[in-house]
Amino acid sequence: MAYFNNIPTVKYEGTDTKNLFAFRHYNPEEVVLGKTMKEHLHFALAFWHTITMDGSDPFGYATMQRDFDDSDDEMVRAHHRVDAFFEIMQKLGMEYFCFHDVDIAPQGNSLTEFYANLDEITDHIKEKMDETGIKLLWNTANMFSHPRYMNGVASSNSAEVFAYGAAQVKKGLDLNKKLNGANYVFWGGREGYESLLNTDLILENDNMGRFFHMAVDYAKSIDHLPQFLIEPKPKEPMKHQYDFDAATAMAFLQKYDLTDYFKLNLETNHAWLAGHTFDHELNVARSYNALGSIDANQGDYLLGWDTDEFPTLVVDITLAMYQILKNGGLNPGGINFDAKVRRTSFEMDDLILAHIAGMDTYARALKGAAAMIEDKFLEDIVEERYASYKNTEVGRSILDGTATLAGLAEHALKEGDKIELKSNHLEHIKSVLNDYLV
Amino acid sequence: MAYFNNIPTVKYEGTDTKNLFAFRHYNPEEVVLGKTMKEHLHFALAFWHTITMDGSDPFGYATMQRDFDDSDDEMVRAHHRVDAFFEIMQKLGMEYFCFHDVDIAPQGNSLTEFYANLDEITDHIKEKMDETGIKLLWNTANMFSHPRYMNGVASSNSAEVFAYGAAQVKKGLDLNKKLNGANYVFWGGREGYESLLNTDLILENDNMGRFFHMAVDYAKSIDHLPQFLIEPKPKEPMKHQYDFDAATAMAFLQKYDLTDYFKLNLETNHAWLAGHTFDHELNVARSYNALGSIDANQGDYLLGWDTDEFPTLVVDITLAMYQILKNGGLNPGGINFDAKVRRTSFEMDDLILAHIAGMDTYARALKGAAAMIEDKFLEDIVEERYASYKNTEVGRSILDGTATLAGLAEHALKEGDKIELKSNHLEHIKSVLNDYLV
Amino acid sequence: MAYFNNIPTVKYEGTDTKNLFAFRHYNPEEVVLGKTMKEHLHFALAFWHTITMDGSDPFGYATMQRDFDDSDDEMVRAHHRVDAFFEIMQKLGMEYFCFHDVDIAPQGNSLTEFYANLDEITDHIKEKMDETGIKLLWNTANMFSHPRYMNGVASSNSAEVFAYGAAQVKKGLDLNKKLNGANYVFWGGREGYESLLNTDLILENDNMGRFFHMAVDYAKSIDHLPQFLIEPKPKEPMKHQYDFDAATAMAFLQKYDLTDYFKLNLETNHAWLAGHTFDHELNVARSYNALGSIDANQGDYLLGWDTDEFPTLVVDITLAMYQILKNGGLNPGGINFDAKVRRTSFEMDDLILAHIAGMDTYARALKGAAAMIEDKFLEDIVEERYASYKNTEVGRSILDGTATLAGLAEHALKEGDKIELKSNHLEHIKSVLNDYLV
Amino acid sequence: MAYFNNIPTVKYEGTDTKNLFAFRHYNPEEVVLGKTMKEHLHFALAFWHTITMDGSDPFGYATMQRDFDDSDDEMVRAHHRVDAFFEIMQKLGMEYFCFHDVDIAPQGNSLTEFYANLDEITDHIKEKMDETGIKLLWNTANMFSHPRYMNGVASSNSAEVFAYGAAQVKKGLDLNKKLNGANYVFWGGREGYESLLNTDLILENDNMGRFFHMAVDYAKSIDHLPQFLIEPKPKEPMKHQYDFDAATAMAFLQKYDLTDYFKLNLETNHAWLAGHTFDHELNVARSYNALGSIDANQGDYLLGWDTDEFPTLVVDITLAMYQILKNGGLNPGGINFDAKVRRTSFEMDDLILAHIAGMDTYARALKGAAAMIEDKFLEDIVEERYASYKNTEVGRSILDGTATLAGLAEHALKEGDKIELKSNHLEHIKSVLNDYLV
Repeated sequence: MAYFNNIPTVKYEGTDTKNLFAFRHYNPEEVVLGKTMKEHLHFALAFWHTITMDGSDPFGYATMQRDFDDSDDEMVRAHHRVDAFFEIMQKLGMEYFCFHDVDIAPQGNSLTEFYANLDEITDHIKEKMDETGIKLLWNTANMFSHPRYMNGVASSNSAEVFAYGAAQVKKGLDLNKKLNGANYVFWGGREGYESLLNTDLILENDNMGRFFHMAVDYAKSIDHLPQFLIEPKPKEPMKHQYDFDAATAMAFLQKYDLTDYFKLNLETNHAWLAGHTFDHELNVARSYNALGSIDANQGDYLLGWDTDEFPTLVVDITLAMYQILKNGGLNPGGINFDAKVRRTSFEMDDLILAHIAGMDTYARALKGAAAMIEDKFLEDIVEERYASYKNTEVGRSILDGTATLAGLAEHALKEGDKIELKSNHLEHIKSVLNDYLV
Repeated sequence: MAYFNNIPTVKYEGTDTKNLFAFRHYNPEEVVLGKTMKEHLHFALAFWHTITMDGSDPFGYATMQRDFDDSDDEMVRAHHRVDAFFEIMQKLGMEYFCFHDVDIAPQGNSLTEFYANLDEITDHIKEKMDETGIKLLWNTANMFSHPRYMNGVASSNSAEVFAYGAAQVKKGLDLNKKLNGANYVFWGGREGYESLLNTDLILENDNMGRFFHMAVDYAKSIDHLPQFLIEPKPKEPMKHQYDFDAATAMAFLQKYDLTDYFKLNLETNHAWLAGHTFDHELNVARSYNALGSIDANQGDYLLGWDTDEFPTLVVDITLAMYQILKNGGLNPGGINFDAKVRRTSFEMDDLILAHIAGMDTYARALKGAAAMIEDKFLEDIVEERYASYKNTEVGRSILDGTATLAGLAEHALKEGDKIELKSNHLEHIKSVLNDYLV
Repeated sequence: MAYFNNIPTVKYEGTDTKNLFAFRHYNPEEVVLGKTMKEHLHFALAFWHTITMDGSDPFGYATMQRDFDDSDDEMVRAHHRVDAFFEIMQKLGMEYFCFHDVDIAPQGNSLTEFYANLDEITDHIKEKMDETGIKLLWNTANMFSHPRYMNGVASSNSAEVFAYGAAQVKKGLDLNKKLNGANYVFWGGREGYESLLNTDLILENDNMGRFFHMAVDYAKSIDHLPQFLIEPKPKEPMKHQYDFDAATAMAFLQKYDLTDYFKLNLETNHAWLAGHTFDHELNVARSYNALGSIDANQGDYLLGWDTDEFPTLVVDITLAMYQILKNGGLNPGGINFDAKVRRTSFEMDDLILAHIAGMDTYARALKGAAAMIEDKFLEDIVEERYASYKNTEVGRSILDGTATLAGLAEHALKEGDKIELKSNHLEHIKSVLNDYLV
Repeated sequence: MAYFNNIPTVKYEGTDTKNLFAFRHYNPEEVVLGKTMKEHLHFALAFWHTITMDGSDPFGYATMQRDFDDSDDEMVRAHHRVDAFFEIMQKLGMEYFCFHDVDIAPQGNSLTEFYANLDEITDHIKEKMDETGIKLLWNTANMFSHPRYMNGVASSNSAEVFAYGAAQVKKGLDLNKKLNGANYVFWGGREGYESLLNTDLILENDNMGRFFHMAVDYAKSIDHLPQFLIEPKPKEPMKHQYDFDAATAMAFLQKYDLTDYFKLNLETNHAWLAGHTFDHELNVARSYNALGSIDANQGDYLLGWDTDEFPTLVVDITLAMYQILKNGGLNPGGINFDAKVRRTSFEMDDLILAHIAGMDTYARALKGAAAMIEDKFLEDIVEERYASYKNTEVGRSILDGTATLAGLAEHALKEGDKIELKSNHLEHIKSVLNDYLV
């Protein structure tokens, strides 16, 4: 079934175009820093926000017009949704996708039925993948929507719920193998607490460690070990979520000896909710060699919940792309649009228009960040600013491990009163940064 | 010199007293859960907020009336301040104190002079300690106020600044030995960044790791290894501070292999600025076996900066005391009042009144938390809520490590559709909690 | 139909009771400051959170077990819900209720049908009222859930939507007359904007002014003019809501000459989201003689969205009750529980338990605030602190309007350099406040 | 005296220049929408942040190198500072300035002495003005730094303090007349409270109303009535500041019948701290016909205090300029740089570099906003979106006041079920907005 017949395949036409359904910045084959834009930006389409999100919010009913929801039969609808999903990717030239298990198939009346539905729909998805060359960036299990998960999964107070989640992840890994996924994601939407009063935080974290090890062991046992990714978020729906931010996730992964298998999937809006800029989170992940993949979106700095807007703030995204380029890209990760159209953007066309907006933003950001790197704009600033660690004996002794507190104290007693500082000139730097925004 | 002659030694008089200079809740010798209040609550007086804080704020000049600043000679003043400091502790019956190096002695015109001033003043302090039996809970080096530290110390861009900081910490450890300190604290007030644009976050963190190892090595070399403590704070004065919160500090300590030597010194107001409750931070620290000591104060949930108010919010502090009791106390740590009188509480008496308020709050909290433990109020809730991990085979297999994803999936396929959930009744629990607030 | 047969009528039993279904503080006939608790606290039950709220959140499905949703026929269900609603009020001894139009009756396939459904159900409600003596505190029109209201109502970009809203409010006022309501509320959930880019803020505000005048005129025309109430909220669901807080609403009401007809309905959680304490909002409303009624709940200071929790924070609510007592109560307003049980408190019993928790909290607060007033705890502090406006000539000249800038300058030139300040001793005051918390 | 001899007069050189001391966007004589940039942007230099700000923060000592502080004699220094101040304006081609009384002259040992110092220094300033043609945009009285103002001024609990403030404002108005100022500003930095517990909010607001009326009356009496401006800020240094935001200030001005004399001076960073975007605050002010002047700076969306950074976020400032253009400019107001160099930008050059950054940002914003207006980018969107208020009978009846609730209800009963909505396509709009960012 086709649902977007009235929309042409979206092509790059530059900024002068009057065609709404054209890229004005994303030019897939344009070479930037030696690679095509397409290679830099492994764009992925998210099933949930694109296909199943209905526009409801805590104060309002569904608003979305979705032509592909044209059947009352849940399985027929599920198949039609897959058709529409791949159609959108083809219109946009996107080569990757992501999904939760519950997005693609009805959960039926039992876990057995759910497994069967997943098998049937992933057969369809696999055909589509073969037909189009589109690949699975990652899948995950939705273990936060069903009432059974109201208190979490791996961190649930109930061993039965833990086991149910294990069954969803097992199936998720089987499907990851079937569809040759590159990554598998855990977003612990309910892994946290509503109140510390009734919570055994220590047991819950230990159990999460156990759960993740079971997942690694199972992946090994089926000879298909994807890159595992934790997606930090500080709160919402829970009062507190255990994977609060990148650093918190790294504390956890180190404690439970999981760093060989897990990296991070970082999201702009989640970073902001944790009180961080997005490039901060990416830089922290890099410092732990754990930058795996990203969820592209943005929030609203003045709102305290996850708005999952399509990214259009060029300055923030450019600084994020700078970190990604410094990371040597995200392979085998990518850029998944975990973004939803506003509930007032309820027409079918908006699904295309919004992704064009997001992809163009990332293309702007790539061009800007690449220019910064070509000009060594920030590299030169950093190089000069930290020069004393290379240029002076005391600096080198600190880096090579020969310095001692006593030795440095002796040095400072002799030289410390002569220290001369240099201005950072940050106002000027921030002004020049604007010249790199495309 | 004596400055508080008009104020009597503060005694416990109960809630009916009209005497402002009496404890209404803190009864040092009262036994709670088998120990005296005094043993539970190792109260410490902070030199900076008590003695040197002048009431200025970013928009206003100094306001404090400080009779002990009665000399224009810096060293004479420093000695008088020590007298006043011990006098306050004796009035309040406090047995511990804390200080930054720059609090107690003028920095002079050179590092050499600063060392000499510190030696002279700590001789005075040592005499006072011997005379009164009051002990050093911890000291630290102020490496954030001087302009040389505008870009940090261990995370400075300048090797010379790093070396200067090393000299301060070396001296700090020497003084810690001289005064037989139990703990030594690092608060990285400028260890962070103002902007990522000019920052090498990775180098800066590596250097912090190096700095801390040097400190450990030096302490060993002088045969005096105190408990080292990192004090997390998310921001202010920096845009971002590396020791953002408890979990972030634990990620760092694990990465740089420092967990054997470092625990955390947690502060209420810092927790709030990081988006956490205080008991959350304490519980996270406990989960890493790293709850070392606390800074007692409170902030304002609706303000975005560090107000360092004296603690009077009984509900928050009671939940904090509950975590401390679950930790088996804080030994060798304690409860340091990192709290300052409002700039409108500028009279000498306020120094006493405010500490009475804070100590009474912690006494209320101790009594409340102890009652909760005696009644097993929360223990019973937790015990019942997580019972399935003990009562069921599947639960036990998760805890003992024999469960596998495949095995649990098999179990869930059989049993998962029958899961029955129980209400958490959180509204009721929160209502009953009020009965434990003293 | 009866749905809570297993739950006894809730009575006051004091704090020693082990009976979960008893008040431990709310003693309806207990006299406080010369009036019974019941007279002080016009508790009202909210239809939406009590009866129709299903426990879903942006990341999770419905969780609530609701025995009264025992029919697939929408109108039968609506009748059963009314039965359950009154049953709960009778169990709790609540004498007032509140509802949105869409809560009580299905919207059907047309506005005509909706009107008819409302007529039928309000006949039922009226019978129940007559039977029980329970009264309507206020009703309102839900003009935020339906997709037609995605861009607001009175502030909609569409005149047709404005007209539709007018029809809902007209019916709302008719029903208010039919049920002899004391107040009529406007909560402008979508009266605001998602983005200023496509918004004519000035026209939208003008239209809101027009809308409210039409409502006043209509109420006069049917000879039933209730107290109109605006309920401020700063944001959510919109990025910005026009009735941001009490002061913003008062700016609007003054601008559009509506202060004779409108007062404010203030909510704790909304206050916090706007960056205010609840007692601040109440005090601001009092300063404009506009404190009309309140929505009792609480949020979470560390979360950025509306959690609508049952109030259990005694300190905040006591300070709120203090403002209410200083206002001479809320008549003809009251205390409506705009609070919802957590989605993990999904059992039928929780509806009762949570309201007991909330009512007991307000009873604690009433007792505490009354004691503060009896002791003149804060009055005395204020009296003394502002004494110079009564005791001095210059002070009296300021209050009586005879002072001039030039005259005061002359005075200051003579006397100003001698000003002596007094400490506020706030730490002590905050500590004593705890003694008033019940 | 001259202090910036090594810095050339700053000229426009375009974006290709390598000269740090050149404008890359601000081209004073370039015509935009029929006026020169200089006419659009009445840039003003702030005395406090430029000349007296020393780089200290709550955790650090002063850092600034200020060559003009070259005398130990306070009055000599004050004169030198005036020289440096005008030198900077001339280097930058700025034509307006702003000051607090305490910025320009030492306060001496008495109010009489302060008056005399102000007279002497303003003689000097007047000479400089005559010599350079530079004009006074506004002055104000610093009534927040001195300890006497710890509890506010007009809202102080002390009538003597009220009188002292009156004396400062009287002198401020005299100086405003002497220097032919166009505006006079009130920033109520301490007009608010630290705690409601000891505050009579109603009396304090009444007194503020009285104070402002006295100021108006005095200005009339000296035949020099400048545009009065209130500068809202929500908090800091106080817990709550009465002029919370634009709407709150308008509520106050209406209540006390001051709208004929007062408009608003809005600041970016203050807007953010209140939870608003800057263009929101400007739009609200416009809706009350009260947009008077602005303080140009920016904060940090993730920090909770006033950072007063130089504006470099082009997207925010462009939307602000759009509002200013829609307002027909700011005359007699202007754009005052209430921005301070970072404490790490401590060199003399930074004073120039930072203002270049800020002025270029506003020039970028002006060009972008002008292009939006020329293209009717947003006007067309708004025109179409609200068309029904012009195109339909029901819409016109709403605007012209003939519609009634009953009439609209009748209309809705007939037509309301046929309402068709249109997507807002906000993602697309936000993407196109980027094309307007210069």
